[in-house]
Amino acid sequence: MNGANALLRALLEAGVDVCFSNPGTSEMHFVSALDQNPEMRGVLCLYEGVASGAADGYARVSGKASSVLLHLGPGLSNASANLHNARRAGSPVVNIIGDHASYHLPLDPPLASDIEALAGAVSKRTIRITSQELIAAQTRSAVESAMNGRRGVVSLIVPADFSWLEVSREVGGPVTTNDESPEVAELGELARRISSADSAVLLLGASAQSERGAKAAKRIADTFGVRVFSETFTSIAERGAGIASFDKLSYFSEAAIEQLKGADLLVLCGAEVPVAFFAYPGLENRLVPPGTEIVSFTTDRLGADLMLEELCQLLGIGAQRVEIPVETLPEMPKGQLTGAKAAMVIANVLPRDSIVSEEAITNGASSYLATRGSRRHRWMNLMGGAIGQGMPLATGAAIASPDSKVVNLQADGSALYTIQSLWTQAREGLDVTTVIFNNQSYAILQLELGRVRAAGEGEESRKMLELFPPNLDFVSISEGFGVSASRAQTAEELELQLARAFEESGPHLIEAILPTGLS
Amino acid sequence: MNGANALLRALLEAGVDVCFSNPGTSEMHFVSALDQNPEMRGVLCLYEGVASGAADGYARVSGKASSVLLHLGPGLSNASANLHNARRAGSPVVNIIGDHASYHLPLDPPLASDIEALAGAVSKRTIRITSQELIAAQTRSAVESAMNGRRGVVSLIVPADFSWLEVSREVGGPVTTNDESPEVAELGELARRISSADSAVLLLGASAQSERGAKAAKRIADTFGVRVFSETFTSIAERGAGIASFDKLSYFSEAAIEQLKGADLLVLCGAEVPVAFFAYPGLENRLVPPGTEIVSFTTDRLGADLMLEELCQLLGIGAQRVEIPVETLPEMPKGQLTGAKAAMVIANVLPRDSIVSEEAITNGASSYLATRGSRRHRWMNLMGGAIGQGMPLATGAAIASPDSKVVNLQADGSALYTIQSLWTQAREGLDVTTVIFNNQSYAILQLELGRVRAAGEGEESRKMLELFPPNLDFVSISEGFGVSASRAQTAEELELQLARAFEESGPHLIEAILPTGLS
Repeated sequence: MNGANALLRALLEAGVDVCFSNPGTSEMHFVSALDQNPEMRGVLCLYEGVASGAADGYARVSGKASSVLLHLGPGLSNASANLHNARRAGSPVVNIIGDHASYHLPLDPPLASDIEALAGAVSKRTIRITSQELIAAQTRSAVESAMNGRRGVVSLIVPADFSWLEVSREVGGPVTTNDESPEVAELGELARRISSADSAVLLLGASAQSERGAKAAKRIADTFGVRVFSETFTSIAERGAGIASFDKLSYFSEAAIEQLKGADLLVLCGAEVPVAFFAYPGLENRLVPPGTEIVSFTTDRLGADLMLEELCQLLGIGAQRVEIPVETLPEMPKGQLTGAKAAMVIANVLPRDSIVSEEAITNGASSYLATRGSRRHRWMNLMGGAIGQGMPLATGAAIASPDSKVVNLQADGSALYTIQSLWTQAREGLDVTTVIFNNQSYAILQLELGRVRAAGEGEESRKMLELFPPNLDFVSISEGFGVSASRAQTAEELELQLARAFEESGPHLIEAILPTGLS
Repeated sequence: MNGANALLRALLEAGVDVCFSNPGTSEMHFVSALDQNPEMRGVLCLYEGVASGAADGYARVSGKASSVLLHLGPGLSNASANLHNARRAGSPVVNIIGDHASYHLPLDPPLASDIEALAGAVSKRTIRITSQELIAAQTRSAVESAMNGRRGVVSLIVPADFSWLEVSREVGGPVTTNDESPEVAELGELARRISSADSAVLLLGASAQSERGAKAAKRIADTFGVRVFSETFTSIAERGAGIASFDKLSYFSEAAIEQLKGADLLVLCGAEVPVAFFAYPGLENRLVPPGTEIVSFTTDRLGADLMLEELCQLLGIGAQRVEIPVETLPEMPKGQLTGAKAAMVIANVLPRDSIVSEEAITNGASSYLATRGSRRHRWMNLMGGAIGQGMPLATGAAIASPDSKVVNLQADGSALYTIQSLWTQAREGLDVTTVIFNNQSYAILQLELGRVRAAGEGEESRKMLELFPPNLDFVSISEGFGVSASRAQTAEELELQLARAFEESGPHLIEAILPTGLS
């Protein structure tokens, strides 16, 4: 068996059975080894940013590690924005990068570059394979590192010769994931602090945002009057009818500061310390009031929901009745579409147990609020702020959960970063419905331009934030990539087209035409 | 004046007057400053890889430095594959990366990452702005570094606060480019070695491949029987009718070894030491025969043509008559298109003084050979092997030389990396004609799979190299981005469509349908 086969077998033994790929010459033995290892699902992507975003989506939905296959430094660069997002999401991704043969690298051939430097910026750990004899052991170690402790991206650099050379001795075996136990042993002490605080706030991360976690948080909120918020961005959360819901901490720092005002205790339930996304001239960039005591609930994002339940037990409210919202849908709108109307339509028709990949940017908040009482679903956010993730994330989610309807709420400007996702959705027959919020602008930047107090009154600056002329035609682009598409100008059209997309399986794209710019 | 204005003015004073941009929140003051500095042409790109590739194309064609505006680490990552190519091309590009406000960065907000590590991998120098007072001086230094010595990419990291803060004292002034003089003072000694060598080879880099350089090389070849090759990949070269032409050193190492066989002297005329692109099991990866003496002509890629002329003087052949090829066009083919026929059609209709951006991959060599006797033109190659450069490069070239017809010979798989280029071509009304060689495959990888002796007989490996199903429809995609497009199935159709595209100004795309896979 050659090194590439040993690597693939080690991945499979460690429970990694999907690889989102955009290979090149140095990865040809890996590609060839797919034939000998049919348990590994190879998914071809037309661009590396699609592959890495899909791996993140797969990991979030499945809870398992996924893998990516990339070609040298440039392939890694193309994947890196979405690897950055995966890093921020804490998604276990094994990022396999083919490199030149070890003896070829010293010649500095055209495609050579500093892969370790590039990988280091997006990985919790980077491993360079040093011999074909160690390839299985090093691969296994990569999966373990991705899964253990705070989960994340582990990069595995594989020189081509170690892929093609024969392995004489195989080292392998299943991976034991050794999840660190949460740090706060003193849950009892925390219970006392919550019950005695003047104004406590719970901040829920992804692992707290399950049905059970939300119910426990609601019990604490009801009893002690504490405020509960979910993080501004969450890798994946359960929500909708039957699940207690809380406001998100606002993206806008002024609003977030208002939400946290007066808190004397901030309990991070699998969440990070909240910080402003950007700094703005003359605005505060620290969100937590000075003097607030911060207590972290978990060392990573695992299991905060179970700890919230235990906290309820300690507080003596483990069985307390809570009011859980039933299905409450907004009024179905009519007429010419706006962002708000599109959100209301979506809230009405969102299928039960669907998965939403939301990168709607300026239309994200209204979509999130409108769907609060929709049929139960899971919601995924962009975690690292690197746009171009929504479509790949939806792609990976659909592969991880083939029986779910995946709905991608997608801003127009961001869509164009990784629009190639559509082809993989078509090729794999994935059940993804993409709604493009087409407002013909980088509307978020029109808003941010004002917020940073950059004047921008002229023609030139205006042009840098507008996506016309020429008008982008997403229906035409989508059909070019093999995904059937339609255009909705009114709420009625959007409703009809969504109903049709959800009825049929396979990918669809709907271009929702909104008023130009911020609306 | 704020820092962003000072930065823009420093760029302009240093002769940089174009900025290919994909900005975000941290670059809003730069965008706003465009209104105050109308001499700076801001060109919006829908994806960072388009911006960086266009900057490379602009620099190659204009001979001047260009600039790029990117948003934080993820924006830099998206631009990096084409920055890698620009680095390998020796193109002077000032790579401006907005960062978080200096006081915000310690909070590790979601979009923060190790920008220096990412920039270091693609730059000859990386500068972090440390104060708004120094922004003009540091910008000027960046342009100087990009232009001097071996030209290249210089990254300039600009924290947002230094963009918005007021500058009290301005530091600026024009840049003096201080091109290093060539290293080989001993041209006389080199002349003696060439005349006494048993078997000398001249290898021409970009700066040798002008009309004058080629003529001088031809004189030396004719008199002393030396072999002359041009580099496998050249950033930009003059060629066609009226210009002496030489074979390229082959991409395939076996063939390149054959070309260099028996050489006792290898003279690098603005070229790098040739190395194999990849290593292959059981094949030699060193191209230069052992024992060959290697002499480098220049320390950078500038001026090798003038040095070749001086060498001719020293050799006493400065005025010797040389046979210069006249226009010799291949037969105009008929019927169903193949890659070879497409190349022949293009060779026949290529407009005088056009600029070719070639990323045709498996159809690159035949296109290059077929156009040897075409009307005079300039030819640009992919330099760093990171695919997805052809379309951005054509975009930048058209902005640098608005009176030239730009022809982009483009492979299908590579096109899909930076297809967003089309929108910028439409928006700016650029005179670019893109010919997509659509063979529905990563055909180069089908070839490489065999060459690395990876078996790949199965269904899974085959699927990883095929771009169907679904079939990509480039006409539909192109029209979606605002560029009118047509499809050619026969040589006659291609001829007609090219003629129409060259007649009209503005961008066009022609999808040339070729037999599937290698042909």
